[in-house]
Amino acid sequence: MARVKIVEVGPRDGLQNERQAIPLAVKLALIGRLADAGLTHIEAGAFVSPKCVPQMADTAEVLASLKLDGAVRYPVLVPNLAGLEAALKAGAREIAIFGAASETFSRKNINVGVHDSLARFEAVAQRALAAGLSVRGYVSCVVGCPYEGDVSPRKVAEVAAALYRMGCYEVSLGDTVGVGTPDRVLAMLDAVTAEVPVDRLAGHFHDTYGMAIANIYAALCAGVRTFDSSVAGLGGCPYARGASGNVATEDVLYLLHGMGYTTGVNLDAVTDAAWQIADALGREPGSKYARARGRSPAGGNA
Amino acid sequence: MARVKIVEVGPRDGLQNERQAIPLAVKLALIGRLADAGLTHIEAGAFVSPKCVPQMADTAEVLASLKLDGAVRYPVLVPNLAGLEAALKAGAREIAIFGAASETFSRKNINVGVHDSLARFEAVAQRALAAGLSVRGYVSCVVGCPYEGDVSPRKVAEVAAALYRMGCYEVSLGDTVGVGTPDRVLAMLDAVTAEVPVDRLAGHFHDTYGMAIANIYAALCAGVRTFDSSVAGLGGCPYARGASGNVATEDVLYLLHGMGYTTGVNLDAVTDAAWQIADALGREPGSKYARARGRSPAGGNA
Repeated sequence: MARVKIVEVGPRDGLQNERQAIPLAVKLALIGRLADAGLTHIEAGAFVSPKCVPQMADTAEVLASLKLDGAVRYPVLVPNLAGLEAALKAGAREIAIFGAASETFSRKNINVGVHDSLARFEAVAQRALAAGLSVRGYVSCVVGCPYEGDVSPRKVAEVAAALYRMGCYEVSLGDTVGVGTPDRVLAMLDAVTAEVPVDRLAGHFHDTYGMAIANIYAALCAGVRTFDSSVAGLGGCPYARGASGNVATEDVLYLLHGMGYTTGVNLDAVTDAAWQIADALGREPGSKYARARGRSPAGGNA
Repeated sequence: MARVKIVEVGPRDGLQNERQAIPLAVKLALIGRLADAGLTHIEAGAFVSPKCVPQMADTAEVLASLKLDGAVRYPVLVPNLAGLEAALKAGAREIAIFGAASETFSRKNINVGVHDSLARFEAVAQRALAAGLSVRGYVSCVVGCPYEGDVSPRKVAEVAAALYRMGCYEVSLGDTVGVGTPDRVLAMLDAVTAEVPVDRLAGHFHDTYGMAIANIYAALCAGVRTFDSSVAGLGGCPYARGASGNVATEDVLYLLHGMGYTTGVNLDAVTDAAWQIADALGREPGSKYARARGRSPAGGNA
């Protein structure tokens, strides 16, 4: 059976937009349950400005409680050299750097254009690689941009290729605003795979308009075998009020297992984790699977 | 551009499971908005036991208020000859008959096995066709059954072929419990299209586990060009408590328009209708698109 790798982004990409404060113990319990469920790549935090992203301010404390040299990888987001130094000090073994395929998005998100952002990330990647860390790259806005609209597949391929060349072992392609449909995802992948081997790519889809699972299916058909997802569908979409964001890990697992792929992840255990973090946040899980299964494997929401 | 036909099932399949009584005026307003949005096939009710399905008890009154000989078709569900006589009396121009590909589901749903149900439906179809009506056929449980689990594609093909042979102009293939994934949908379609031309088939997917849009995309790839859907995702899944049912018309339109198909349906107008019926029912629309767009096209949920 073909194997698919899941990169769980809930504890970082999921929680970073929450308005309520998330206690450290809640984060650690979530991460622990996700690792126990069989997830081997769990994004654990970000060394970014605590003023901009207060939810990630305790990332060093999160890392201090994790076994960082074990079988589970806990990447952390790093925007610049200062962030990298903090990550190194905290013992991180893997970092993620994040470029965008849209000029305007890049300027609004990290105050610098695409070209300059890549130069900045190259310095971060060099220092991280020299320190023995693994580096993962993100490209956001790979189909559309909240400011510019359609994004050209060629631009995505350029940014993905730059991240790959600077040493990212994997480049995650993010449909940040969730506007993609399978045809556009396939056109984008067609351009990107001309520059980066498909086994070094990951799909990162948002379910804002309900297209994420269809886009993952299309990407699977194109040979992509790594997908980012977020337990309970944690993470809103700041560009569409009231909308959902990251595709839910449970729904992705349901698709993959239903199609006969192996993931090494236990769907019921992830669904238990989804209900637990949803309870902690005072709402229902954002995944169709978790709501249909109910709070316990036997069914029912009681 | 290739054209895709949408059969709107919200006023029937969607509302039939609602616990609260739906006033006739609310139903008629909904149907009117859907027709104004450009939908040309709107399932308007069912002549079934009002004891079993009280929400459909006013179907004759619904039909009395509609223009039944115009451009918009308003099919009604009919389980037997008595139901057909009521439909004829009410002026229906199109009926739908509903078989199942699962023996147990057929017995639990309509108290008769698959073989006997087809004989019963054949009598209904003959009488309806003789009276000049159009007849549409449904097959439920085309991938899985809540009682039997996996359903064999060959069994689905047999039932679909029987409905087609008895004069159904279209056979709608329903993943009633929403358990399908694209690979299983394609295997099922492979078997069915050996018996029934693909342009006489419709896909009817439920989003219980979040797979509906991916399954529709797979069915599009297999040549299916007609899909059933329900405004606002109306309709729960009686086999999974707390779960959603029919795929939402708005999400299907977003997929289709995004991929360049024409439908003749205005997505914003359907989304307005979704918010209006959701307000009438006292909850948010069940579609990702409607929640992301917000109550008005300008955005926002205020």
